Amino acid sequence: MNPARPFAVRGPRVDCMQYGNWSEKIFRQMRDGGVDAVHVTIAYHENFREMVANIEAWNLLFERFSDLILHGKWSGDIALARQTGRTAIFFGFQNPSPIEDDIGLVEVVHALGARFMQLTYNNQSLLATGCYEQHDTGLTRMGKQVVREMNRVGLVVDMSHSSDRSTLEAIEHSQRPIAITHANPAFWHPALRNKSDQVLKALGQSGGMFGFSLYPHHLHGKSACTLQSFCEMVARTADLVGVEHLGLGSDLCQDQPYSVVEWMRVGRWTKEVDYGEGSAANPGFPDQPEWFRDNRDFVNIEAGLAATGFGPADIAALMGGNWLRFFEAGFVPEDARNSTTARTVDIAI
Amino acid sequence: MNPARPFAVRGPRVDCMQYGNWSEKIFRQMRDGGVDAVHVTIAYHENFREMVANIEAWNLLFERFSDLILHGKWSGDIALARQTGRTAIFFGFQNPSPIEDDIGLVEVVHALGARFMQLTYNNQSLLATGCYEQHDTGLTRMGKQVVREMNRVGLVVDMSHSSDRSTLEAIEHSQRPIAITHANPAFWHPALRNKSDQVLKALGQSGGMFGFSLYPHHLHGKSACTLQSFCEMVARTADLVGVEHLGLGSDLCQDQPYSVVEWMRVGRWTKEVDYGEGSAANPGFPDQPEWFRDNRDFVNIEAGLAATGFGPADIAALMGGNWLRFFEAGFVPEDARNSTTARTVDIAI
Repeated sequence: MNPARPFAVRGPRVDCMQYGNWSEKIFRQMRDGGVDAVHVTIAYHENFREMVANIEAWNLLFERFSDLILHGKWSGDIALARQTGRTAIFFGFQNPSPIEDDIGLVEVVHALGARFMQLTYNNQSLLATGCYEQHDTGLTRMGKQVVREMNRVGLVVDMSHSSDRSTLEAIEHSQRPIAITHANPAFWHPALRNKSDQVLKALGQSGGMFGFSLYPHHLHGKSACTLQSFCEMVARTADLVGVEHLGLGSDLCQDQPYSVVEWMRVGRWTKEVDYGEGSAANPGFPDQPEWFRDNRDFVNIEAGLAATGFGPADIAALMGGNWLRFFEAGFVPEDARNSTTARTVDIAI
Repeated sequence: MNPARPFAVRGPRVDCMQYGNWSEKIFRQMRDGGVDAVHVTIAYHENFREMVANIEAWNLLFERFSDLILHGKWSGDIALARQTGRTAIFFGFQNPSPIEDDIGLVEVVHALGARFMQLTYNNQSLLATGCYEQHDTGLTRMGKQVVREMNRVGLVVDMSHSSDRSTLEAIEHSQRPIAITHANPAFWHPALRNKSDQVLKALGQSGGMFGFSLYPHHLHGKSACTLQSFCEMVARTADLVGVEHLGLGSDLCQDQPYSVVEWMRVGRWTKEVDYGEGSAANPGFPDQPEWFRDNRDFVNIEAGLAATGFGPADIAALMGGNWLRFFEAGFVPEDARNSTTARTVDIAI
C-alpha cells in the first residue's frame, strides 16, 4: 500500500504508543510511513512540574516542526493532520505521578492535553497495583476517585502496566471504556506485561481498546519474532475479543540511550538496578524485529494482516479506524455544554 | 434597562476585572446584573504551582455552579454564556509570577485558560517596571521575549499596574494590541495607578483597550465619587482616545477579608507593612460608591452614560461590545491552523 496515496482513499493510521528520542528524523519517518496520529509518553516518573517541562519541550518541537507535526487534542485533530499532511501527537502518562496526590490535577492535565494516563507503571501507585508487584490489591480508595474524575474530564484510563485484578476492577469501576494501549496476549507470549484471556475478554466486552505492542520483550521469539506469527496472534485475539476492539500501540522507543531505559525502570523508587523486562546481560533496548524497525514499516504490518486473511475493512479498523472511534468518544468531557472547546469538537470531526 | 431582557436585544455586558471572594451569592448577582463575562484575577504573587491550585479551586466552582458560570476560554464562550443564561469567567494574572523565570510557561498557562497577564504588579518584575517604583527602566530583556511569546500564543499584555515608560514600550514592542484592563485617567484623579494622557493616546492609537476602574482609590472623590463625574470622565476619555477603545474593568473586590488585601500588597516581597493605595488609618478595602456596590449595578452605569449623552450604540460598545471584539482578536494563537481548538473558534463566534 502506498503511504503517499490521498488520505481519502485509506483510513487513518494511528499508533497508540511511542516514546522516541524525538527528532526531525523520526517526524519525517512518521510522514514517510503515512502515520496520521501517535500517542506519545510525556511522563514515566515525572511529578507535575517536571511533566510540564516535558510539555514545554514538546511545544518547542511543535513550533519548530510545524510542517510535520501538530499537538493533537481532540479526535478531529487527526482529520486536520491528514488534511495538512502532518502527524497529530497525543500526550499520555505511563504513571499517575504527574497528578501527585492531588485529584484536582486530573482536570488540569487534561487541559494541558493529556489524553491517556496509566494508573500504574509496574509498581504499586497511589491508585492501583502494577504488574511487577507480588500482591495486587486492586483499585485504592484514591484510585476509585481518580477513575471517576478521569471519566468526567475525558482522560482515558490505561492499564498497560497494571496487574490483573487492578485491571479488572478498573474496567468494572470506570463508567467509560478503558484502554490497554500497548501489550500483547499472554497466550502468545507469557510475559508479566502481557494480558490474560480474562482481561482481554473483559476489556472487549466493556467497549475498551487493546493496542498490540511491537516491543521485542512482548513478542513471541522477541527480536526474532516473525511477521506471520504476529499477524496470526492478531487474528486469534480478534476471534477472542472482536476485531473492533483492537489497534496498534507499537511501544517503539526509537534512538533512546540507555539512560532513558534506566529512568523508565528505576525512576526514583530504588537505589538498586532494576532491569525490568531486560537483564544484566541485556540491559538496553532490544533490537526491533526486522519487519518493524520504525514508522516507515506500518506498511509491512498491513501486508502481513492481508496475508493472514484480514479483509480491507478489518485492516483499516486495526490500523487506526478503531482508535479514531475510541478517541472520538474518549477525550471529550462529560459536560460538553461547558465550553466552546468541547462543543466545537463535534463540528471538527 | 431590564437586565432580564433577551440577550439578542442588548449587547454583551463584560467586566474586564474582578477579584471577589467567590461565592454563589456573587455568581447570582452576576446573573441578576446580566453580566455575560468577567475577567477574574487568579494570581497576584503566586508561582506556577500555586496558580494551578487556584485553577483547581475554580474548577470546583465551575462544577458546583454549572448553572451560573462557565470557564471562558474563547470569545465564543460569551455567546455560549448568553445562550445558556450563565456568566463566562476568563482568567488573568496581575503579575507574571506564575511563569516564574520560564518563557515556556507562557504557552502552558494559555493552555490552562489564562488570557491576560500583567507584566508587573506595582513593583519591578523580571519583565518590566511597576507603577510604584522610583525608576522605570522599561521592558527588560526577558520582558521583550515574553511579550513576543504572549503575542504568539494569544495571552494579552495587561499594563494596569505598570509605570509609563514600561507601558509605552510594551505598546511599541507588542505586535498585537495590549490592554489596560482596570485604571482611570490621571487627568481626572492623579493616582499612581491612573494613566497619563500620553499612555491613553498611545494605547488607543495602537488598537488597545482601556477598562475603567470603579475601585474607590482610582475615583475622583474616592468612595464619594458621583456617577455623573464618572460618566463625564468617560466622555472626556472617549474624546481623547475614541470610544471604540473603552470598556469597564471594575476592579470589584467583593467580600474580601483584610488578609487578602495584605496578600495583594505585600505578597512575599517585604517583611514590612505596605499599605499600597490605602494608609495605616484606612488599610482595608474602601467602601464602593453607592451607585456601584456589586454586579447588579451595571444598569446604573448604563443609565449614567445615557444621561451624559452617549447614544445606544456607544453605550453597548462601552458596556461590553468593545471587549468582545478585543477578545475575538486577542485570544487565538497566531498559528490557528495548528489545532481544532483554535480553528473552531471561528465557527463558535
